[in-house]
Amino acid sequence: MFSADIITLFPDLFPGPLGASVLGRGMADGLWQLRATQLRDFATDRHRTVDDTPSGGGAGMVLKPDILAKAIDAVAPVDDPRPRILMSPRGKPLTQARAHELAVGPGVVVVCGRFEGVDQRVIDARNLEEISIGDYVLAGGEVAAMVLLEAVVRLIPGVLGALDSRDEESFENGLLEYPHYTRPQTFEGVDIPPVLTSGDHGKIAKWRQEQSLLLTRARRPDLLKH
Amino acid sequence: MFSADIITLFPDLFPGPLGASVLGRGMADGLWQLRATQLRDFATDRHRTVDDTPSGGGAGMVLKPDILAKAIDAVAPVDDPRPRILMSPRGKPLTQARAHELAVGPGVVVVCGRFEGVDQRVIDARNLEEISIGDYVLAGGEVAAMVLLEAVVRLIPGVLGALDSRDEESFENGLLEYPHYTRPQTFEGVDIPPVLTSGDHGKIAKWRQEQSLLLTRARRPDLLKH
Repeated sequence: MFSADIITLFPDLFPGPLGASVLGRGMADGLWQLRATQLRDFATDRHRTVDDTPSGGGAGMVLKPDILAKAIDAVAPVDDPRPRILMSPRGKPLTQARAHELAVGPGVVVVCGRFEGVDQRVIDARNLEEISIGDYVLAGGEVAAMVLLEAVVRLIPGVLGALDSRDEESFENGLLEYPHYTRPQTFEGVDIPPVLTSGDHGKIAKWRQEQSLLLTRARRPDLLKH
Repeated sequence: MFSADIITLFPDLFPGPLGASVLGRGMADGLWQLRATQLRDFATDRHRTVDDTPSGGGAGMVLKPDILAKAIDAVAPVDDPRPRILMSPRGKPLTQARAHELAVGPGVVVVCGRFEGVDQRVIDARNLEEISIGDYVLAGGEVAAMVLLEAVVRLIPGVLGALDSRDEESFENGLLEYPHYTRPQTFEGVDIPPVLTSGDHGKIAKWRQEQSLLLTRARRPDLLKH
């Protein structure tokens, strides 16, 4: 079973959105499991300190390498085959391809950063793979971890009921998805495009492919360069 | 005050992570507010239907334009100055620059998609700005809305205590952030780089700038092209 471990200062935020809807049903059905571990439980002083001031000065606080290493070693021994991931804006951008890879693996160990950052020595020593969910900065890694897990868990076989609904999604074929329509036939004076109600499946497929290409060219020409 | 409205089928997921840590304190201090509205409350049949099959066929379900339009009109009348955003993988990628723009505005109205998508006619009629948080697919827009709000709300003046801690973050100067270190001086046999404990602030600043540049060149050369 796909097994996710989260190391965080806010374990109560989990499962949160990951317990809702199809992901929550998948968890209840035993298709995946989630455990959140409180980093602070690995502190060694009576104030349960997990951070300290940055060497060389500067604002913010840095997560201490010794405490984080102990937490990682506790949830994932050396022989644990799961990738160890640090959610970080400095990381490699998450892609749908990476989500597919992770979904067929044994699970993930995810470290959620807080404060200014994480001591580089524990990133190196524990071989943490830094993954970024996008080019913006968050207050911590918890919501980023939720994004990563939601993207991955929905791809675990059995989690989504209708498997074929994934094939035409954005990014699965390198293009953004075509526009959708449903009833009513007329909404505020605008009809559903006639081709979609023509019953001609060849024409419908061709129209959708054209729309995907037009939309991608207009909004994300970078996706067409590869 | 910055005011966020969320239209969702899962209002109980909010505030969730947005109520924790600095964002939660900012909310308690009256620096921003959040309201989640149940889309299903705007359905008109006794099954509280919000979706229907896609015109032209295909897997999944599509959010009905009439129901969603009623929900949007209820939380944001025509003269509401807030941008209306639809979280969608087809959207324009969220950037730190867009987060800054939104943070100095009156707030946001965020529609969370579910199922296969949203009828294109309500996207057009209500001028929804489609925003993507990254090139991957989620089960719904709720966690994406949390990402958007977390990125924006932490930039609202007063939410983060130490304002200057933002200037050197990833993306704020076009580069990824340099590595961080903190005590202990030696971790598993590895010392903090001597320059950081030299006390020479000029050398420290130069080293950090170099490290940022090296890291960006190695991991994200695309950021250097602009």
